[in-house]
Amino acid sequence: MDQNLLRALLEEVRAGAVDIDAALDRLRHLPFEDLGFAKVDHHRALRHGMPEVIFGPGKTADQISAIAAALLAKAQNVLVTRIPGEVAERLQKELPSAEYFPASGSLRVWRDRTLHGKGKIAVVCAGTSDLPVAEEAQVTAEVMGNEVDAFHDVGVAGIHRLMAEARVVIVCAGMEGALPSVVGGLVMAPVIAVPTSVGYGASFQGLAALLGMLNSCASNVTVVNIDNGFGAGYAASLMNRL
Amino acid sequence: MDQNLLRALLEEVRAGAVDIDAALDRLRHLPFEDLGFAKVDHHRALRHGMPEVIFGPGKTADQISAIAAALLAKAQNVLVTRIPGEVAERLQKELPSAEYFPASGSLRVWRDRTLHGKGKIAVVCAGTSDLPVAEEAQVTAEVMGNEVDAFHDVGVAGIHRLMAEARVVIVCAGMEGALPSVVGGLVMAPVIAVPTSVGYGASFQGLAALLGMLNSCASNVTVVNIDNGFGAGYAASLMNRL
Amino acid sequence: MDQNLLRALLEEVRAGAVDIDAALDRLRHLPFEDLGFAKVDHHRALRHGMPEVIFGPGKTADQISAIAAALLAKAQNVLVTRIPGEVAERLQKELPSAEYFPASGSLRVWRDRTLHGKGKIAVVCAGTSDLPVAEEAQVTAEVMGNEVDAFHDVGVAGIHRLMAEARVVIVCAGMEGALPSVVGGLVMAPVIAVPTSVGYGASFQGLAALLGMLNSCASNVTVVNIDNGFGAGYAASLMNRL
Amino acid sequence: MDQNLLRALLEEVRAGAVDIDAALDRLRHLPFEDLGFAKVDHHRALRHGMPEVIFGPGKTADQISAIAAALLAKAQNVLVTRIPGEVAERLQKELPSAEYFPASGSLRVWRDRTLHGKGKIAVVCAGTSDLPVAEEAQVTAEVMGNEVDAFHDVGVAGIHRLMAEARVVIVCAGMEGALPSVVGGLVMAPVIAVPTSVGYGASFQGLAALLGMLNSCASNVTVVNIDNGFGAGYAASLMNRL
Amino acid sequence: MDQNLLRALLEEVRAGAVDIDAALDRLRHLPFEDLGFAKVDHHRALRHGMPEVIFGPGKTADQISAIAAALLAKAQNVLVTRIPGEVAERLQKELPSAEYFPASGSLRVWRDRTLHGKGKIAVVCAGTSDLPVAEEAQVTAEVMGNEVDAFHDVGVAGIHRLMAEARVVIVCAGMEGALPSVVGGLVMAPVIAVPTSVGYGASFQGLAALLGMLNSCASNVTVVNIDNGFGAGYAASLMNRL
Amino acid sequence: MDQNLLRALLEEVRAGAVDIDAALDRLRHLPFEDLGFAKVDHHRALRHGMPEVIFGPGKTADQISAIAAALLAKAQNVLVTRIPGEVAERLQKELPSAEYFPASGSLRVWRDRTLHGKGKIAVVCAGTSDLPVAEEAQVTAEVMGNEVDAFHDVGVAGIHRLMAEARVVIVCAGMEGALPSVVGGLVMAPVIAVPTSVGYGASFQGLAALLGMLNSCASNVTVVNIDNGFGAGYAASLMNRL
Amino acid sequence: MDQNLLRALLEEVRAGAVDIDAALDRLRHLPFEDLGFAKVDHHRALRHGMPEVIFGPGKTADQISAIAAALLAKAQNVLVTRIPGEVAERLQKELPSAEYFPASGSLRVWRDRTLHGKGKIAVVCAGTSDLPVAEEAQVTAEVMGNEVDAFHDVGVAGIHRLMAEARVVIVCAGMEGALPSVVGGLVMAPVIAVPTSVGYGASFQGLAALLGMLNSCASNVTVVNIDNGFGAGYAASLMNRL
Amino acid sequence: MDQNLLRALLEEVRAGAVDIDAALDRLRHLPFEDLGFAKVDHHRALRHGMPEVIFGPGKTADQISAIAAALLAKAQNVLVTRIPGEVAERLQKELPSAEYFPASGSLRVWRDRTLHGKGKIAVVCAGTSDLPVAEEAQVTAEVMGNEVDAFHDVGVAGIHRLMAEARVVIVCAGMEGALPSVVGGLVMAPVIAVPTSVGYGASFQGLAALLGMLNSCASNVTVVNIDNGFGAGYAASLMNRL
Repeated sequence: MDQNLLRALLEEVRAGAVDIDAALDRLRHLPFEDLGFAKVDHHRALRHGMPEVIFGPGKTADQISAIAAALLAKAQNVLVTRIPGEVAERLQKELPSAEYFPASGSLRVWRDRTLHGKGKIAVVCAGTSDLPVAEEAQVTAEVMGNEVDAFHDVGVAGIHRLMAEARVVIVCAGMEGALPSVVGGLVMAPVIAVPTSVGYGASFQGLAALLGMLNSCASNVTVVNIDNGFGAGYAASLMNRL
Repeated sequence: MDQNLLRALLEEVRAGAVDIDAALDRLRHLPFEDLGFAKVDHHRALRHGMPEVIFGPGKTADQISAIAAALLAKAQNVLVTRIPGEVAERLQKELPSAEYFPASGSLRVWRDRTLHGKGKIAVVCAGTSDLPVAEEAQVTAEVMGNEVDAFHDVGVAGIHRLMAEARVVIVCAGMEGALPSVVGGLVMAPVIAVPTSVGYGASFQGLAALLGMLNSCASNVTVVNIDNGFGAGYAASLMNRL
Repeated sequence: MDQNLLRALLEEVRAGAVDIDAALDRLRHLPFEDLGFAKVDHHRALRHGMPEVIFGPGKTADQISAIAAALLAKAQNVLVTRIPGEVAERLQKELPSAEYFPASGSLRVWRDRTLHGKGKIAVVCAGTSDLPVAEEAQVTAEVMGNEVDAFHDVGVAGIHRLMAEARVVIVCAGMEGALPSVVGGLVMAPVIAVPTSVGYGASFQGLAALLGMLNSCASNVTVVNIDNGFGAGYAASLMNRL
Repeated sequence: MDQNLLRALLEEVRAGAVDIDAALDRLRHLPFEDLGFAKVDHHRALRHGMPEVIFGPGKTADQISAIAAALLAKAQNVLVTRIPGEVAERLQKELPSAEYFPASGSLRVWRDRTLHGKGKIAVVCAGTSDLPVAEEAQVTAEVMGNEVDAFHDVGVAGIHRLMAEARVVIVCAGMEGALPSVVGGLVMAPVIAVPTSVGYGASFQGLAALLGMLNSCASNVTVVNIDNGFGAGYAASLMNRL
Repeated sequence: MDQNLLRALLEEVRAGAVDIDAALDRLRHLPFEDLGFAKVDHHRALRHGMPEVIFGPGKTADQISAIAAALLAKAQNVLVTRIPGEVAERLQKELPSAEYFPASGSLRVWRDRTLHGKGKIAVVCAGTSDLPVAEEAQVTAEVMGNEVDAFHDVGVAGIHRLMAEARVVIVCAGMEGALPSVVGGLVMAPVIAVPTSVGYGASFQGLAALLGMLNSCASNVTVVNIDNGFGAGYAASLMNRL
Repeated sequence: MDQNLLRALLEEVRAGAVDIDAALDRLRHLPFEDLGFAKVDHHRALRHGMPEVIFGPGKTADQISAIAAALLAKAQNVLVTRIPGEVAERLQKELPSAEYFPASGSLRVWRDRTLHGKGKIAVVCAGTSDLPVAEEAQVTAEVMGNEVDAFHDVGVAGIHRLMAEARVVIVCAGMEGALPSVVGGLVMAPVIAVPTSVGYGASFQGLAALLGMLNSCASNVTVVNIDNGFGAGYAASLMNRL
Repeated sequence: MDQNLLRALLEEVRAGAVDIDAALDRLRHLPFEDLGFAKVDHHRALRHGMPEVIFGPGKTADQISAIAAALLAKAQNVLVTRIPGEVAERLQKELPSAEYFPASGSLRVWRDRTLHGKGKIAVVCAGTSDLPVAEEAQVTAEVMGNEVDAFHDVGVAGIHRLMAEARVVIVCAGMEGALPSVVGGLVMAPVIAVPTSVGYGASFQGLAALLGMLNSCASNVTVVNIDNGFGAGYAASLMNRL
Repeated sequence: MDQNLLRALLEEVRAGAVDIDAALDRLRHLPFEDLGFAKVDHHRALRHGMPEVIFGPGKTADQISAIAAALLAKAQNVLVTRIPGEVAERLQKELPSAEYFPASGSLRVWRDRTLHGKGKIAVVCAGTSDLPVAEEAQVTAEVMGNEVDAFHDVGVAGIHRLMAEARVVIVCAGMEGALPSVVGGLVMAPVIAVPTSVGYGASFQGLAALLGMLNSCASNVTVVNIDNGFGAGYAASLMNRL
């Protein structure tokens, strides 16, 4: 649409229907176009074959349902994050192909399963309490076209495979958040650390893990927001396309 | 009442019924009069035609009902903020002309719709989750006599109109809180930034947005409290009367 | 320059020298143009007759001198903020008309003294320790074309004049930061509160004042960053042009 | 009991039944005696006619009931703080003379109403949301033998009386917490400031009010914990006995 | 002066030279009078025989010298807080009777040594590093007309005397800040706790001590700002006049 | 299993079936083996006769039941922490010998009651609200083979016995967290301080107590996480084996 | 060395000189080997041709000189970070080929200039004050074998090239830290955000920027520690090898 | 002295010179005696052969010299912590046998070298920047009669020996503070974690390390204050005497 607006404007310029100064004036107000907070994902989807994403919290089932329907009219894959089971049940009635992942509250319509990533992404988590965050990362990375290996019990075999196979590693950990450093010290792949809000007391809802990861002595570690499995899966997917 | 007290005192002075020293002594204790926390809004309403405002949280339906009735005896417009639907329903029975806005929990009796603002106020928000705060700002600015344009999906047309029309811009944003800076960089109007508590993890209930806005590189941005749509609408209204 | 680029592009389109698709492609990369962090002040200066501003900290005397010279070639007024006396002395040798304000470290070349503000701006501060911040606000508001009244000892006469004359009020306060609320309760003008880092102990370098101001019970108060006299002067100037 | 232990030991010493070194050894372990965290209130009650106090949170109705019964066997007055209505109802069945104050959750058995304070204590609060904290302060000060004036709507008459009558002033305020400073600037009496957790956003559950009060420019202000109406009432009572 | 203004206004009213409405209008702007931040200490000094106080930080030697000279023209006693030795030396040349206390940086002109306090104030500190804060409290309490006992090594004799003699106790402590609780558990007098910024690591410049004191289990403890020996001495003085 | 893997590898080396370089390569990936986050407790149990521990939060009743069954197949003692009553009831049906401690939510299967500790561990708490944390510490220390004395009302007798008998002392305290310092000053044994989240206002969910304990003036005090009764009991058990 | 130890052990196993159980026992203590905090960079350098890195702060010139000499005996490239000019001057005397970058305090011996990265890395910064951090990132990425484009004035041309050429983008920004989000919204490459400690007041030494970046609405953004230009350059280099 | 006071009192009781009630009254004021903040170390030294300790910061060379001289009159060993080289040099002139450790600023007079610890204490640190804290721990543990092994480069041999020999392990680490968890996972001994203020940015002067250690997944880890090498050495010494 915006492209069309622009094209129309340029055609008017070429046709002499709009003079240069008027065109300049209208163009001066364009900068926001591509940022366009609410529209940016759509633009990207058109250009890069990525899924449409609906951040669930704060939206009603009606709103999500309407947005999902609209998006599925033009995109193959849609990911809805962090919705409760009731909302998911209702959406699944309307979108029978949708899978729901209750630990993370992710709902996924995954019609185009083309692999875009060049290798595997490993998703590691420190303990069972970190599983919801790891699941969100995995669901995201998969729907973005990646093969994902999940490691919930990190033993020797796991590390061996990590080193051999994963091009990008996601590590989710709460409490002290030391696991990304340990993994980062063992692999040469980029490691995306996801602090989780798992813990109690001086974990301060993930703050301890976040600070630990930011201060990691392993320099291949970068960090995303607390509990942001989606962001980790998304960034890892981009890296895996490199 | 206080005015009357003062007038009475002065008349006694003029009549010689109170001597200067006694009057001085009584006057020395006046300073608090106009601050008078609980009375200040009423004074203002008398002088400036502003609405009476009842901050809802912590008050029972009974209390709000009684206060509203008392205020409506002397004021045309009353705004009640942040009340749940049950309380609103009951109040609407007693005040059939009252509108209720469920997203923000605002209830408004808007009998005098005189426009006091000289231009339009724009209320922009970054995402649908910020809508409740934006709604509170809009409802407030309207009942204070302003024409308000709401922009919930900031595209090129929106920015164009913002620049052309709004004398004051309110921008509500959670998470990183970057939208006010972007808007502030594009318009010359004063921008009131409202951090919202929308987000998770390291958004720390609006702290990240608040800090981001306070550090904005756009110098036309000033900031109000987290989620304080009312304060933003109020301050914008004063600016729009300038 | 960017305007020229754009104009050139449009002229090429009109002349048929660039086809629509190529023009579209080049335009698609424009969004950042007007944000252009480093260039934005310059654009504004061209459009609005505002001063050029150089934020001093982190720049060497050489850098500031070169930037100031470049800016003065195209702008009448230049403001340099937060530079020490040695740097100011050197700049004053090169720019004899520059005034230096040692309390705030502001240096100002003020050649075009047109008044752009429609009324007066009041700059109030709680104590002598807050003077540097108030001075920065005053110097800024003046060079942006405003008449400024400074109130460093807020007594009855001051408040009287505040209420009668100021269209916008700036209040600088450290420690508990309560003065903006008190002033805000007495005037109907917009009040811009500037927390200062003045204080000790639990003032936490201005955090106590900042939080106090954000929680002000006076709804005409908006807040800028700690010690940000410049931002307060800038925002007040825009409001005073309304 | 401990007193008896000590007396017994000393009598053994006098009787020669315990030699000096053995007595020294046993005494070396006494220091905790009077601190005795759990016993200290009881000791004080014996010596000073103060009420027994039961801090309610974390105790079951059974526990509170048993403790209250035990205490009432030896003390005239008992104060239970912060208990919900259900617990209060049950206690009132067993202690028909107990009054319950639902705003603050205080329950009071007040059999000995001797006045110990030499003058009046004023309890001021900024808004209706601060009433629960003010009520706890008032209930406490009364049961400790003080005449209390409550000021919930601070106008000129209130301030006048405050200045004339109160020997000690308690001020409860949330949000920015500026009221204690204003009151402190108007009266010469000691002012005990109680930050309340009332507010939202950057009030951070009373932190803003707490910091504001600690940084008060009125030097007659001292501060107690957030929402600690009990502590304010207690400390004010001691001051009023001076 | 303000009193004179008011008196003049009232006399004009009595004389019929100003009509009631005009007088009302002028009076409406009075509220700030008695707050008058910058003037309040002076007012108090006139009314209560208290010392004039100059908060040193942020003032030049010239400024302090001029203010002190002006104050000493109308007051017997002046206290200057937190000035370095160089400034003190210069002031002592001009005010030979001034004493300087280098640990706290206090300078005191103490010409009227009338005792206003009814009993003794005890100033206790936990360790030698807390001495500067304790000294500021002691110097303040003395110049306000109190007999002060300093306890820097709290042993049994000290506690004994504390209990027997002090009407008010000030306790300064850094690190964990537990001493006020211990003292508070042993005496019935009001205890003013002063957290000090002494410590390292997780003492966070006095924050740990501040939080500890606010959470004290001894209910006779109230708290002032970190390192605020002056405020403690001032508040204790008011209590000791009760 | 891992041991078996290693043994198999070494046997292959000895047999010449794997050459040194290949073995080196496989061994290079072993480092994680013994860390093995999820497996470490099991390894220890095998080697040290310690109980298996299941951290309850975030696990379903099904999960806990399955894990407990698996662990009890190879270990005598199992401790499940922080589970609600419903889950405990269900587990007790399957494991009739399991004891449940409702205050702390601990569930314990304690079949091998061998004493491993050389002396007694004392568990002290400041108030009844700290009991759940103290209970978790006690339950843990007991199932790890220690005789535990619990002191919930610290009087002279308690302290006497503490000094005489306990080899290690655990002190649980919320609010200001001063008790560990006091105890630490009276005993020579190592003191493990457990801050509890008990309190309100500026206790900030245990932060005040945590900071107080970290700044303790008693050098025999070390600290564990807020509410971490389990960790205190575990560490104390190791010390008591020394 | 460790490799040799291992090899020796395996050879002993093969030779039958060490039996399996003894070998197992020795191997059980190996886990730390490869982590080996102090040795890990060296291992990597051997395997991946990466530079040796010496973190300068806290080391004396003597120590750095000795370590650098030792490392240069076995590695082609060495990077020393964050050393002052004096130390750099001395090192340059001993290592004439070393370049020194005074803004960031980086010193680099760059003998092997093989390109390992598959594309370009862009290093963007928001303002001149962020240059030191950007420089550290650039120097690091270069010595790790990458072609780097630096963008210190982000205009349209810069963005154009960014989108066309960079495989990985590093964005350094202080204050509000919004630039990474803006860049992240315009490019599809992974963006590594580096908050800088540039700013004042509520920037809290980079905390505001850090929180803003963690809450970025652009999902291709990951974050490293405040001022950690080195870490960003390192992680970007790994991504650019993918 | 206090012992003597007590003995004298008891003798008077035995002699009938003081009656029981008077003795009781005097004893009631004793509680502070043994706490006696300033005296407690001395008492302990008399009873347990521990060194006298002088915490250096905030004391002048004169004060330290006088205290040290007094202490050495009655104790064999004295430890002075955290003094700069100049002060140490002067003290060494007066106490030729004193050793000075410049990294940590410790000065030690170690005349009685009896071993009180039953085994070895290991002091581990993560990097060279943590050495000052580790040194303080080592110096303290040695002067308290322990054999100490220092591990500054934790490789396989080190870990092996740690597991075989150390009864207590001290681990000092800054930045993310993960090393204590790793060590804690490998050894069965009690581990005392010392967060150091080493780091930058989001390490927040040791806060990140502190939080990481408090949230450690290794349950044998307890924590002391940031940079508190002395406290770790002291607590470890007590444990090693068990």
